[in-house]
Amino acid sequence: MQVIDRKTLEEKISLSEELIPVIEDAFTSLATKTVTMPEIMRIDIPEHHGEVDIKSAYIPGYDSFCVKLSSGFFDNPNKGLPSANGMMILISSETGEVQKIFADRGLLTDLRTAAAGAVAAKHVSRENSERAGILGTGAQARYQLEALLLVRPIKTVYVWGRNQQKAQEFQEEMEKKLNVSVTVGDTAEEVVRNSDIVVTTTPASEPIIQGDWLHPGLHITAMGSDAEHKQELSTSVIQQADVFTCDVLHQSRRLGELRTIDDKEIIEATIELGNVTGGQRTARQNDDQITITDLTGTGVQDTAIARYAFQTIGG
Amino acid sequence: MQVIDRKTLEEKISLSEELIPVIEDAFTSLATKTVTMPEIMRIDIPEHHGEVDIKSAYIPGYDSFCVKLSSGFFDNPNKGLPSANGMMILISSETGEVQKIFADRGLLTDLRTAAAGAVAAKHVSRENSERAGILGTGAQARYQLEALLLVRPIKTVYVWGRNQQKAQEFQEEMEKKLNVSVTVGDTAEEVVRNSDIVVTTTPASEPIIQGDWLHPGLHITAMGSDAEHKQELSTSVIQQADVFTCDVLHQSRRLGELRTIDDKEIIEATIELGNVTGGQRTARQNDDQITITDLTGTGVQDTAIARYAFQTIGG
Repeated sequence: MQVIDRKTLEEKISLSEELIPVIEDAFTSLATKTVTMPEIMRIDIPEHHGEVDIKSAYIPGYDSFCVKLSSGFFDNPNKGLPSANGMMILISSETGEVQKIFADRGLLTDLRTAAAGAVAAKHVSRENSERAGILGTGAQARYQLEALLLVRPIKTVYVWGRNQQKAQEFQEEMEKKLNVSVTVGDTAEEVVRNSDIVVTTTPASEPIIQGDWLHPGLHITAMGSDAEHKQELSTSVIQQADVFTCDVLHQSRRLGELRTIDDKEIIEATIELGNVTGGQRTARQNDDQITITDLTGTGVQDTAIARYAFQTIGG
Repeated sequence: MQVIDRKTLEEKISLSEELIPVIEDAFTSLATKTVTMPEIMRIDIPEHHGEVDIKSAYIPGYDSFCVKLSSGFFDNPNKGLPSANGMMILISSETGEVQKIFADRGLLTDLRTAAAGAVAAKHVSRENSERAGILGTGAQARYQLEALLLVRPIKTVYVWGRNQQKAQEFQEEMEKKLNVSVTVGDTAEEVVRNSDIVVTTTPASEPIIQGDWLHPGLHITAMGSDAEHKQELSTSVIQQADVFTCDVLHQSRRLGELRTIDDKEIIEATIELGNVTGGQRTARQNDDQITITDLTGTGVQDTAIARYAFQTIGG
């Protein structure tokens, strides 16, 4: 049973154009095949402000599938350790044997989440989106910006975070790495008002975007909220959007931005991204619509990227 | 991230008296502490007659816990592979870091299941039980017999299985290994009528023990049934028993021998084994009672044995 560590993965797998169809296909499978995706298993360790989540998904006809463990232990930084940990286990769907363990410490999850951001922007935002807004200044904020650059002709970037220092670090790093102009905004509102695409990447438990900040043509991808206590968009944002899309409807209602929405009309009009990537539905219909994609994260993305890593690294 | 393989585990861990209090404590914790034990996650792969189960349990105050993957792929024997596979992942409950991966292919599960059989016999059967009856002739049949010998003064053994050849192999192997007299029974009934303790270790989906075979003083441990389609005891067996115990009531009702029982009185009188090991309840009250223990398998047993393996092998 071979374990591949994060360093090896970092050398061989990156956020590239190649990854986008991999994750696109995962969403399409989710919407068009009878995917086996059990409810997320969660083990809470309140004494240590920790939790472990287990996700899995089997796509019929695929010869392997992934079981992912991911953990967040929020006292870890005080101990000099990263709060997030994770591993993916790739299992043969023909024999049940473990094919590979990726001790990736969350790298593959970061990449598949970023790739999902690219898929959302590619299928839901305006094609001519040139101004990106990023809320949050962590690792996923960086990945999401990189992802946008793969699918839209981004020229300028606005960033905002609660910590001004970190926002400046983001600015310097991203300008150097991606060759784009980055401005640090004073408020989240300033970022939203000056962007064609906004990606929210925060662990916020109170909404950080308000409905009266929106403008025609805006697309928002909300990827921070993935638990019952998190929320990035106020109810008014969702009410004012013309098109609401998400990865999995029932997950968005349980863990994501639809959690506070009771309006039957909004829920029934919600489009799952896989129906857009698969061509059954159209999300955005013109350049003036306001669109949202809520990403909570799915097991099919894990299965897709673990299989991709296995193929890339070689059995 | 260190992986310990089955061979290493076989050399260092065995079914011994030392293991019994480890599993006893696990049951006591389950009954007396607020153990976090999520519902079993199951991924079915019907095209390949396979399934993968994921179990976990966190016992408050313990510095680590286990996530277990176990699989059964029933076409594997045709491919020259064992049908069962499995691994246990020991995770720090303080930081979420993986402490060890036991690529045990089911060994630790076999041992903790056998130890649970010993715990059941120790706390529910007659102390003077001398005649053991084993239904089934596989690996767990052997372990369960070994387990009984650790806790009861077993002198004679009756075994029965659908395959006469395998029953004879069981007889030869066990007589040599355990120094007891083993008789192959012609029928399951013959075994039950001639035993003080019967352990059922089959994957039967039709009951193999009938109510009119029972006699005063008999104890039955039913450990085969752990899924919606399995059953080893007919309803009449449970109706005639004086004391019904199990590892986890709701699991026994969903996956175990209580699945076919609607009788509210029986369900309410059921005693969980952890309340017996913990001293809150008494199971058997005299030598004439007929007692049953239904074991479906719990995540706390996995956490207990994974921690024991970690301590025994050394961090």
